[in-house]
Formats: sequence, structure tokens, C-alpha cells
Amino acid sequence: MITAQTVSDNLRKLKDQAPLVHNITNYVVMNSTANALLSIGASPVMAHAPREMEDMAGIASALVLNIGTLSEEWVEGMLIAGKKASERGIPIILDPVGAGATSFRTETCHQIIKHCQPTIIRGNASEVMALISSEVQTKGVDSTQSSDDALEMAKTLSLETGAVVSISGPKDYITDGNKVIRIKNHIPLMPKVTGMGCTASTLTGAMAAVCENQLEAAACAMGIMAVAGEIVTPKAQGPGSFQMHFLDALYNMNSEDISKHLKL
Amino acid sequence: MITAQTVSDNLRKLKDQAPLVHNITNYVVMNSTANALLSIGASPVMAHAPREMEDMAGIASALVLNIGTLSEEWVEGMLIAGKKASERGIPIILDPVGAGATSFRTETCHQIIKHCQPTIIRGNASEVMALISSEVQTKGVDSTQSSDDALEMAKTLSLETGAVVSISGPKDYITDGNKVIRIKNHIPLMPKVTGMGCTASTLTGAMAAVCENQLEAAACAMGIMAVAGEIVTPKAQGPGSFQMHFLDALYNMNSEDISKHLKL
Amino acid sequence: MITAQTVSDNLRKLKDQAPLVHNITNYVVMNSTANALLSIGASPVMAHAPREMEDMAGIASALVLNIGTLSEEWVEGMLIAGKKASERGIPIILDPVGAGATSFRTETCHQIIKHCQPTIIRGNASEVMALISSEVQTKGVDSTQSSDDALEMAKTLSLETGAVVSISGPKDYITDGNKVIRIKNHIPLMPKVTGMGCTASTLTGAMAAVCENQLEAAACAMGIMAVAGEIVTPKAQGPGSFQMHFLDALYNMNSEDISKHLKL
Repeated sequence: MITAQTVSDNLRKLKDQAPLVHNITNYVVMNSTANALLSIGASPVMAHAPREMEDMAGIASALVLNIGTLSEEWVEGMLIAGKKASERGIPIILDPVGAGATSFRTETCHQIIKHCQPTIIRGNASEVMALISSEVQTKGVDSTQSSDDALEMAKTLSLETGAVVSISGPKDYITDGNKVIRIKNHIPLMPKVTGMGCTASTLTGAMAAVCENQLEAAACAMGIMAVAGEIVTPKAQGPGSFQMHFLDALYNMNSEDISKHLKL
Repeated sequence: MITAQTVSDNLRKLKDQAPLVHNITNYVVMNSTANALLSIGASPVMAHAPREMEDMAGIASALVLNIGTLSEEWVEGMLIAGKKASERGIPIILDPVGAGATSFRTETCHQIIKHCQPTIIRGNASEVMALISSEVQTKGVDSTQSSDDALEMAKTLSLETGAVVSISGPKDYITDGNKVIRIKNHIPLMPKVTGMGCTASTLTGAMAAVCENQLEAAACAMGIMAVAGEIVTPKAQGPGSFQMHFLDALYNMNSEDISKHLKL
Repeated sequence: MITAQTVSDNLRKLKDQAPLVHNITNYVVMNSTANALLSIGASPVMAHAPREMEDMAGIASALVLNIGTLSEEWVEGMLIAGKKASERGIPIILDPVGAGATSFRTETCHQIIKHCQPTIIRGNASEVMALISSEVQTKGVDSTQSSDDALEMAKTLSLETGAVVSISGPKDYITDGNKVIRIKNHIPLMPKVTGMGCTASTLTGAMAAVCENQLEAAACAMGIMAVAGEIVTPKAQGPGSFQMHFLDALYNMNSEDISKHLKL
């Protein structure tokens, strides 16, 4: 359904439009995800205060809600921004970080899904499964499940919520409940760098801002993550250098890189 | 009004005195600005709780107020720290991040200006213009205006507030309402790394702590940013490596680097 | 009391068990400490909301309380998590960042010590001394005292609290009030990178999760910091590259590195 050409075309569009992506995200990844957005050609803003949520979501081209370091006031901000974004019809990406680890996280996700209707839910296997089944336990923010096992639940979640569901793992799966796109690049160092999943979510937001089709947007973002990961792997000597080279790879990525490395 | 020699002399003074710079700043840049302060030879502290603001501003040599990720409680902390700093007569730097994007941000800046009398206001062109004219809209935290266009408004802002105004952009302008210092180094990768403006503000705080003259302090800090940018440009392969080399360049900077690279 | 072999054996255990380390820590170091935990083989989670503290501390193998950017709500979260962790008998590491700089910080440490009974207190010399004597003033978060001077107070603090006390500095001292372990590696660039002390604390948490003996755990963590520092020193050209190489060194560290570099 998508090809390397689709990814390249949408990356070009992203660079041309430089969409403003509003992030209400966790403290751990604010710097790295803002840098990923700048590197890929988008314009990031991080803001969470309830008092400015209508204004900020009112000028953004996409909204990313990431529950990685949650508190009550931030949930309030997320709901205000999410409702505004939903009214305006801009894409909303939910990253259910740590859903299944605490009931506060799982419940907050259900609230966001109900009140804001995210267009894309992007998480790891445990997190996606925890949104469907209360029997799945996430180990903090790390997955205890394989993305293969999560695929059927992802389809169910997509059909129940109307959102595209994007699961990252050794294989990535992106589904709208019917169609499934697989990305087969496996980057072993990626889970050793904090916030790579959150980076995937924020790039999904940037892509969603410039693509009509949310399934395509979600898949293109995961494709770009995979290609950057392949470019970086031979250069990285560990998680520190991986993280540095990753931003450089996003910044310099061209269509040759994409056709050379993307494994669909 | 300043020369490469002035910048070198003040950098020497900074390293000798290692001033404690108290930052109430945004989550995105806390790590990178603390590292920039350490690299240049200052001692950073990040603290925001209203309950400890008098104590912390009471031992600092400069205070940096950066509104990048604002909330009501943080504004309260900023005002307490700002009043204490103002009483003590230590320099106060205001970075109006995203002023003009939301009314919460613009209004908070006006409150800080009124109650704390910052000695230096350092922002991008849109932010500075938004403090004078309600018709300027900032794109999240990225400028939509050129620093050339902002210069006249910067002079007005300086005369109205009594603060030196420092505008970053392809050209930097620093003014006290009458005199204008220009720094002409243009570093294309700089806006592709998140928080370089915030880094400029915090280094301005460190310089202001050791320089009597606030116009000179603000200009020296922008000069150091420019010189570090020139040193890094041939080494950087993208935003990731730029950020890493930038800290190394701040740490190793000497007077030869400054006289070689600074374009006044 | 410990040897290079002890450190290697415990590092192996850490990698095998991949313990979940729950951090309530400061904004400045959330990214770098999460990356340090991943690099060494542990699983980090950062979470602070009072509402989810029982759940999160309920599944973790160690809890790290770091007061670097404190606020009232966070103290509440720390106390709930600390009590739960104490009930469960998992290790609790307290990093008293900036104790002695403000009374809020010093008092919060005393509250945590009283209500949560940390198993290890890890700080710099000023911070440790400030917990015993109200006459010691910390310069923001940087030490004004030498670790040699702090040793006697560290012993007293250990005997009073029942916690192992671990002081970092040009020499590191780890004591249970009677025995003292010294680590003599001196890494000059380490204090020029923000959050290296916080990294030491979180690695102490990971080690404490897999070692019965808390004195041994604290010493092994400081040993690993020292060895990584030695590996990085010849490669680093300043604080930026130090930080990057440090994560790579943690990730790649083997028992040869440890026996080659560790100075006990």
C-alpha cells in the first residue's frame, strides 16, 4: 500500500510545509523529540498549561499527546488541547506510554480516546494490548509482548476507536483494522535509547499534518524511523553515538536512502 | 563598542568567577543549558518551586527567566525569584519564548517586565515584536520575522522597559535603545537545534553576572554563541553532531578563536 | 572489601535481571539518566504523580528519589512511593541534590529519611555535610567541600540513618558507618557534565536492585562510573563528547575494562 516512493514524496511535502506540531509530552524526551522534529523539517512546540491549550492547539497542524510522565494538571491540558484539535479536524496522535503499568495511565488513555478521538494511536506491543485487555502488564515503559502477538488486538483497537494503530517493535505493524502495513527493518540498538518510541510518535504527528491518509502517514513515519536506524547502525558504537547520529540521519535523509534501506 | 578583546576579557572573568546562575527555564532545554553553563565555566542551578525561590535567588549571581513551558505555578515562582533578584540588584534575563503565540505567554512577559524589571530581554524577532505589537504572531516558538525588521521595535522596547534588548537571528542585534551592536556571523544549522536561543539567554545570564555593563554582557554572550557556531560548522554533519560539538567548543574556546571568528 | 571481580559479577547480574528502576528525579537529567540505565542493561521508568506512585513503586525493583528540581506535589509523590518501596523492602536511593542550598531541600531530605528509610544516600560532599550540619552551604548544586572532609560526617549520617552513604568527588567514599570503600579514579571532566552525580545515583539504584549488600551495591555503581570515565577520558574533547561516549562506554563495558581501570 505504500512504497519507498510514497515515503519520499511525503518527506518532501513535510519539508516544504514545515508544519507546527504541538506536543504535550513527557519530560524525558522533550529535548530529543523537539530535535527530531527540527531535523526532519517540522516546527516543534512543547506546551501544556491548561490556560494556553486552546491558543496553542488553535495554531498547530497536528497534536501529539504522550502520557510518559503524567500528572493531573497535564491530563487537564491534554483534554483541552485534544478537544480543540478534534474540533479543528487536525490529526491527534496518542502515545500511551506505560499503559498497563498503572491504572492512572490506562484510564487516562481511555479518557483521551473518548473525548478527543485520536486519529492515530502509536505504542509498543504491551501498551497497545493493555488498552484492550486489563490482563496485560507493561514493565514500566518497556514492552513485555511481541509486536506479532499484538497485531490482532491492534486491529480490534482500531475498529473500536476509529484510530489507525501503529505498533513498534522488531517488526512494526500499522493497521486501520482492515489493512496492515509491515515494516521489517530490525534495529537492535533502538530500544537501548530512551524515547525512540516517543520520537516515532512525534514524527507520526509531523507526517499526519501533511498527509491526508492517516494510515499512510503513520506508516511513512515508521518508515523514516527505520531508514534512519539503518543509516545509523554501522556508525553507532553504543546508545550515545546512536542518538547523535540519528538526528544527523533524519536531517540528511534523501530518497536514495529511503529506497536503499526501507524493508516493507 | 565591543571588540574581540572585550569578549575574551569577559570570558576570562567568567571562568575566574564561575558565577552561580539561577535558571527558571523550560523542560526542553534544562539539560542543554545546564551543560552550556558548565562548559563555559559557570555554575548552573535549575529550581522553580515558589517555596525555595527567595533562598535560591538569594545566593545566585544572575537569574534567567525563560517562559518556554509555562504553567501558573511556575509564573508564581518566577515572580518571587524576580523580585528577590531585583531587590538584590543582580542581573535578570528574560527569554520571552513563544511570546505572541499565546496570550498567556505575552501577558506573563508583561507581568515579569512590570514586577521584576529585567536587565536584559533576549528573544527572536517575532517574540520581541510581540512584546510591543499585538499584531505579531509567533509560530509556536519559531520566528516568523527577520531580526532586521525587529530592530526598531527592539529599540522601543528597550526605552520603554529600561532593559537591554538582544535579538538573535541570521544577524544578531543588541541595543539599549540608543546604541546598537551587530553580530554578523550567520550559522545556518543553529535554528535546527532546539534551545540554541535558550542557550544564548543562559550564557547572557552568566556574562551579565560578571560584567558591569549589561549591553556589553549581552553582546559578549551573543559573540560567544557566534564563535562556537563558527567552530562547530565545519565539524557538524547535522543537528545531532552540532549540539555535541557546540558544548566542546564552548569548553575549549580561547581568545584566538574569538579574534579569528567573531564578525562585528 | 570489593574487587574488580565483584564489580564484574554484579554487572553481569544486572544485565541478566534487567531490573525495573523507578525514578522520581529532576527535569535536567531525566533523559541522561534513563539512557544510562538502558545502556547498563536496566529498565528505567520516570513517574511522579501521587496517583500512580503505589502502582509504580509496587512493580519496581528499586526506587531512586532525586530532589534536583523539587516542588510540593513531587515531594508528595516521593513520600508515597518511598513508603510503598519501604514496605516492600526494595532498595531506596536518596540523592539530596542541592541540600544546603535552600531549606526546602534540606527539610525534604530529612522528611524522606524519616518516612522512607532510604537504604543508600548518594550525594556530593556539601550535600552530605548539609544533612548533618546546618552550617554547610551548597553552591546551587555544586559542592563547596572536598569528599575527604565529608567522610567523617558521612559516617555519622550513616550511623544515624541506617543508610549506606556514598560521596562522589575527586575521590569517592562509600561507608556504612564502619567500613569505608575508596574509589580513587579522578575524572576531571566529570563535574563539567550536568547530572553525572544523578547518573551515579540511578546506577546505584540499578545495582542495589540486584545486590543483597547495599554497601557493595553502592561501591559497584561508583566503580562503574569511574571505569566508564577512564574509558571516555582519552576520547572526549569536551563535555559534549564526554557525555556521548559515556553512554557508549556503559553499554560496552566488560570485565577486562573493569580490571584494567578500576582504582580501589
